[in-house]
Amino acid sequence: MKYTEINVLEEIEVINPIFIEALPGLGHVGKLAADHLIDELEAVKFAEIYSPSFPPQVFVGNEGIIESMINELYYIKDLGEDNLDIILLVGNTQGLSPEAQYMLCKDILEFLEKFEISSIYTLGGLPTGKPVEDPQIFGAATCEENIKKLEEVGINIRSNDGGIVGASGLFLSIGKRKGLEGSCLMGETSGYFIDAEAAEAMLNKLTELLKFDVNTDKLDEKAKEIREMLEKAQKMEQELLNRSSASEGDDLRYIG
Amino acid sequence: MKYTEINVLEEIEVINPIFIEALPGLGHVGKLAADHLIDELEAVKFAEIYSPSFPPQVFVGNEGIIESMINELYYIKDLGEDNLDIILLVGNTQGLSPEAQYMLCKDILEFLEKFEISSIYTLGGLPTGKPVEDPQIFGAATCEENIKKLEEVGINIRSNDGGIVGASGLFLSIGKRKGLEGSCLMGETSGYFIDAEAAEAMLNKLTELLKFDVNTDKLDEKAKEIREMLEKAQKMEQELLNRSSASEGDDLRYIG
Amino acid sequence: MKYTEINVLEEIEVINPIFIEALPGLGHVGKLAADHLIDELEAVKFAEIYSPSFPPQVFVGNEGIIESMINELYYIKDLGEDNLDIILLVGNTQGLSPEAQYMLCKDILEFLEKFEISSIYTLGGLPTGKPVEDPQIFGAATCEENIKKLEEVGINIRSNDGGIVGASGLFLSIGKRKGLEGSCLMGETSGYFIDAEAAEAMLNKLTELLKFDVNTDKLDEKAKEIREMLEKAQKMEQELLNRSSASEGDDLRYIG
Amino acid sequence: MKYTEINVLEEIEVINPIFIEALPGLGHVGKLAADHLIDELEAVKFAEIYSPSFPPQVFVGNEGIIESMINELYYIKDLGEDNLDIILLVGNTQGLSPEAQYMLCKDILEFLEKFEISSIYTLGGLPTGKPVEDPQIFGAATCEENIKKLEEVGINIRSNDGGIVGASGLFLSIGKRKGLEGSCLMGETSGYFIDAEAAEAMLNKLTELLKFDVNTDKLDEKAKEIREMLEKAQKMEQELLNRSSASEGDDLRYIG
Repeated sequence: MKYTEINVLEEIEVINPIFIEALPGLGHVGKLAADHLIDELEAVKFAEIYSPSFPPQVFVGNEGIIESMINELYYIKDLGEDNLDIILLVGNTQGLSPEAQYMLCKDILEFLEKFEISSIYTLGGLPTGKPVEDPQIFGAATCEENIKKLEEVGINIRSNDGGIVGASGLFLSIGKRKGLEGSCLMGETSGYFIDAEAAEAMLNKLTELLKFDVNTDKLDEKAKEIREMLEKAQKMEQELLNRSSASEGDDLRYIG
Repeated sequence: MKYTEINVLEEIEVINPIFIEALPGLGHVGKLAADHLIDELEAVKFAEIYSPSFPPQVFVGNEGIIESMINELYYIKDLGEDNLDIILLVGNTQGLSPEAQYMLCKDILEFLEKFEISSIYTLGGLPTGKPVEDPQIFGAATCEENIKKLEEVGINIRSNDGGIVGASGLFLSIGKRKGLEGSCLMGETSGYFIDAEAAEAMLNKLTELLKFDVNTDKLDEKAKEIREMLEKAQKMEQELLNRSSASEGDDLRYIG
Repeated sequence: MKYTEINVLEEIEVINPIFIEALPGLGHVGKLAADHLIDELEAVKFAEIYSPSFPPQVFVGNEGIIESMINELYYIKDLGEDNLDIILLVGNTQGLSPEAQYMLCKDILEFLEKFEISSIYTLGGLPTGKPVEDPQIFGAATCEENIKKLEEVGINIRSNDGGIVGASGLFLSIGKRKGLEGSCLMGETSGYFIDAEAAEAMLNKLTELLKFDVNTDKLDEKAKEIREMLEKAQKMEQELLNRSSASEGDDLRYIG
Repeated sequence: MKYTEINVLEEIEVINPIFIEALPGLGHVGKLAADHLIDELEAVKFAEIYSPSFPPQVFVGNEGIIESMINELYYIKDLGEDNLDIILLVGNTQGLSPEAQYMLCKDILEFLEKFEISSIYTLGGLPTGKPVEDPQIFGAATCEENIKKLEEVGINIRSNDGGIVGASGLFLSIGKRKGLEGSCLMGETSGYFIDAEAAEAMLNKLTELLKFDVNTDKLDEKAKEIREMLEKAQKMEQELLNRSSASEGDDLRYIG
């Protein structure tokens, strides 16, 4: 069986594009950042990707319409002062098994070979396990030149401190073997909820690195909404705890 | 290795059949409904399906005769006022691994391609985790037209509320990519036992949708039997609890 | 990759042999019975079987010589009053994944096809979870004729009571699809240790079924040894418990 | 898909080399020993090995440069009084699934076939679960001749006492089937940390077996460093425990 299915929707022409991977991960930091880019810059979807190793399910979306597990490729042309072409990989899932993750990254990179990618950026989250006030962006890369570029825009460089798991690590690793240089940007996040604040911080660094502008107002709003939702949830939890200690012995199973 | 083995028992002729998936799942809601259809409408088995990824076991059936893990395809012709042809997928198991589930659904859909399926229905259970008095049927679909049809017969439409796991989700997802529209019907069920009541509720909606009649007396009886069995089990549990608190310290391990 | 590797050591000539599967399982009931048959009847090994899905390890055997994970085929000719030829499958492991177990059984059955097997017997254990005084043998089969044969020698027939997991189930299931009839013999065992008593009970039934004799003295001895070992272990455990309650607070971690 | 990727960096000429496997395992005993050999004897890397079944991640190394999951082959020529050629297998991971481990070992052995290996040595750790004062080396082998050689240099021979898991077992097992003899050296280790002391003990036996010299000063230093680090860690843990019992009730979650 062919492992990864790539359905091309449009034959595109791009010049030495930057490839940005932003599949869902910790805090959905990369995914939120990339989805925002796609909306604001009107990126165009040109391929849909399916794998037998995606979770065996669908999501029930708006008004009952089902959403398949999917990865998608978008492109943007002539971006910013360097007239960059960009290819973005987004989606609602990653592969489940180690081997599936590897093959998916490898198959996608090989599909992209004809576009003569100039550089890889992978976007992820760096979990802190506790609330983060002012999320910093951390980085790692395949070569010293890239490390320097990351440092120039104020990205903190990780060193000898663990790994980068999933697509954000694998694209750098497999890309490196194919002669492609790349960098990983990781936004600090508690890891407990979708983190629009970390996504905005990441977008600020990414646009500085790639020299283009993007309006982040909607991401601001999203961050505000999430903060309010979290505060509400904390209040409700507190009320439940109060009520529960007031009526100990009652069966609380049906309150929730 | 060829992943899925499909042994054709009879070459059949059907006209744009409806494909109904009803493999075992939560509360066996879909399976009970489909097994009842097969019995009442004298559906004919025309193919047996085996997969290396079924659980590596057999069941010990009636009088010691073993039952293989199997999926089966049945057909019914000229049903109801629309003279519908129907193909039913039933069985005693689903694939175990994510990849196996995917390949199984894909291989079965590709085997069915020659029959020019007109629509897919997948039948499943929606777990509530607590007893259900009057089980409602919930739905989701691949397109708005189908959502409307479901609403017309009083099916509740889910929206942005999680997923549909296993074959009931995968057949819709893979079918959609092959240009096939489909709907999923989910019967509310506690999920703790085989739920004939939910199956009957589902059958009522399905027959209204597809405009044919089926006698549900046997399903009624089954629902009654299960209710009685559950009541007996609850009584026994209660007695055991009473006896146990009366003789605390005794070793109860051998009572059961 | 070819999934199963079968290295033939000797080209054999057998006439419609009985195939007996006795891979390790609960209480090693089948394995002990088959290993005893091989010793007593001087069965000859004619093939070694390896699979990538065996546990990734070796055993350290006698005097440091390593033992590979392996399945082995033996044969015996002209046995008993029916001049039976027999092929035995034994080994120190089964496949790990569901798919591996399936492919292993399928590949072995297909390798054996040229010998025109007349019948399959699979030998396993039936766990009771508590000590067994006088282990009974239970059976299941692919057809009513076999059930009758099992009943004639006093084997208890299971009915609608769960499954047969692993090779003992799969060989019957895959064999049935290839037109081969078969039976499974299961010896009652606590499941907590290697059970020579259950193995002897099983051998008595098997030899009655297949009409040949085998001396079971060595299996008797083994059963006696195991009983003595268990009694010793129980005594030691009791002493440890006594000492422990006498010196509570001491660090017992280094006693064992 | 081809399971294992072997990228040859240099076509080498070696004469009946010894093959030494030292992938990471318990206490990293084998890995430390082999890494030390490579440094001291200036072994040359001639191939890099990747597998889809390595963990789907990269490590963040020094100054943010990422390190791929990798296995590597090194060679050394004309070593010691027997003018031995040696091929070493090292790396930062083993395969994850049983099947992947098997295929990796098999593919590597088949790649090495052209070099006409004379013997296999696999290096591993033997976990004790408690601190080890003077780590002993234990051995097992594919044949009695090798057992004798191990005994001659004072290696303890294991007997009927469990298994050798992972590459250290599989290379012996698959090698044996290909007509290659081999031995496994296992260094006693607590298993709780990287164990340079056990690695040095192992190196002493290995060099005695293969009759060459290697300076172990750096390994001595490393062992000293690790001992000091462990002592510091124990002190810190003790202080934390003291502080914790002094201020019971405080939330200690943020101290660490």
